[in-house]
Amino acid sequence: MIGIDVGGTKIASGLVSEDGSLAAANERPTPQGSQQAFLDALEDAVRGHPEGVAAVGVGVPSRIDQVAHRVVASVHAPLAGIDLAGYLGERLGVPVFVDNDGNVAGIAEWQLGAGRGTRDFVMLTLGTGIGGGLILDGHPYRGARGAGAELGHMVVDVNGPPCGDGCPGRGHLETLASGRAADRVAHELGLADGRALVDAGRDGDSRAVEALGGIGRILGQGMVTIVNVFVPEVIAVGGGFGRAGELILGSAREVVATEALDPGRHAVRIVQAELGAEAGVIGAGLSAFELLHARA
Amino acid sequence: MIGIDVGGTKIASGLVSEDGSLAAANERPTPQGSQQAFLDALEDAVRGHPEGVAAVGVGVPSRIDQVAHRVVASVHAPLAGIDLAGYLGERLGVPVFVDNDGNVAGIAEWQLGAGRGTRDFVMLTLGTGIGGGLILDGHPYRGARGAGAELGHMVVDVNGPPCGDGCPGRGHLETLASGRAADRVAHELGLADGRALVDAGRDGDSRAVEALGGIGRILGQGMVTIVNVFVPEVIAVGGGFGRAGELILGSAREVVATEALDPGRHAVRIVQAELGAEAGVIGAGLSAFELLHARA
Repeated sequence: MIGIDVGGTKIASGLVSEDGSLAAANERPTPQGSQQAFLDALEDAVRGHPEGVAAVGVGVPSRIDQVAHRVVASVHAPLAGIDLAGYLGERLGVPVFVDNDGNVAGIAEWQLGAGRGTRDFVMLTLGTGIGGGLILDGHPYRGARGAGAELGHMVVDVNGPPCGDGCPGRGHLETLASGRAADRVAHELGLADGRALVDAGRDGDSRAVEALGGIGRILGQGMVTIVNVFVPEVIAVGGGFGRAGELILGSAREVVATEALDPGRHAVRIVQAELGAEAGVIGAGLSAFELLHARA
Repeated sequence: MIGIDVGGTKIASGLVSEDGSLAAANERPTPQGSQQAFLDALEDAVRGHPEGVAAVGVGVPSRIDQVAHRVVASVHAPLAGIDLAGYLGERLGVPVFVDNDGNVAGIAEWQLGAGRGTRDFVMLTLGTGIGGGLILDGHPYRGARGAGAELGHMVVDVNGPPCGDGCPGRGHLETLASGRAADRVAHELGLADGRALVDAGRDGDSRAVEALGGIGRILGQGMVTIVNVFVPEVIAVGGGFGRAGELILGSAREVVATEALDPGRHAVRIVQAELGAEAGVIGAGLSAFELLHARA
């Protein structure tokens, strides 16, 4: 299986075995100019690997309508209104499976990382936005149309600010607890960005520690919703801003422990994701294996 | 199958066939004094039906830990810290299945009512509190420990008031969009309770219409979370306060149409539940059939 992970700056690919092992990893820049240039780069990524591969899995930063076979909209990639699986499948002559990058990360962490051995697992990817992946009753859950689990777009503040970036809602978890939220808080403290805020927090700067704790508490409220609805065994937090680790997870855990319902609040473990930058490629491959088996 | 529906005022029971048809329905008051009196009443409800029944299904207003075989806590019934299925099964000599009343209502509406023919369906029961039932990928979803889908306890306002009634959280949908919320709003308008508020709204009282629309908008924000996470085909609203119907659903629908993500906001239908007061007994029976088959 060839796994492809589409990020805002690069398209990573590799050969993924059913056990999640990765070989022949490589990457190329993500073309931002036109959809055709972007599609050509995806095709090149596949053709860069030896022929004879059974299928291709692509993880995209997109909402997907698997019923209408259509990528609805994407963040940080010129990709919308196209049947990506159909297009690539025709160009390449092999089955292509397309999945949301949050689902893909969730599947990788579930099979190989922080969610190993669980039946009900939630992945939150804190980057510029917040992506999510749900494993329910031992299966990846993608919603009625394959677009589900936009956990970053749970409403946590009915009076909150507009979400933006293609989302018409407001007060969503993504607006208040993502890397973008960290950037905003950083600016208020006179720091360059969220990364500088996390660095300051690690150095023990009390204002940074407090600010990150505040973001963690809102993240925790989002997790209260997740725990009350799903009662998962594990919630794993990854992504660039997720590397803030205990600076945000400590207060998130505290909110869940005091505000979520029993038995969920006792059952859940809130942990950092375990897989690194390769998780996207591996997860794209694993997601495609799963969809291939589901089709068979 | 004997189905039993435990409500705050009465325990209803009946014989439920696998197709959901109901016979020999009857009811008795819900004892509120002691857990033993309550358990005796449940046992009497079963023994009031002819012997030879294969199994019993009980829908309770409770959070259940199906892994630890324990009712964790209940609302409006003296029932906590007990293995209800084990206790009743031993007393009665037949398998007993216990499920949350929100799940039970969801299963009934899915098989016989507003959710017929769907694979992904969400039931919201607006009573004193808010109960929820989830059908995901064609199966009732109960979370990792069988306690899941407490949709009334999604956080919709991180700065909101305490939830109360045994829940340690705050700003939950239940606090802001249940019958209790309607009571509070009614008092502010000098009306007796939520029922009077709904009556006034039906009579065209503009303040009542506006107030109910406001509750509907918060309900709609909760539905935005549901749509963005699950992308269900149908959300059905039932329960005593749910009878406010279009007075709340109109504005809820508007919020979902303008603030939820594509494709979910176009895919979802938001409708009133179709089944009446018998839904609880029928759903308890259907839930037990499903759990019996899952065990087999």
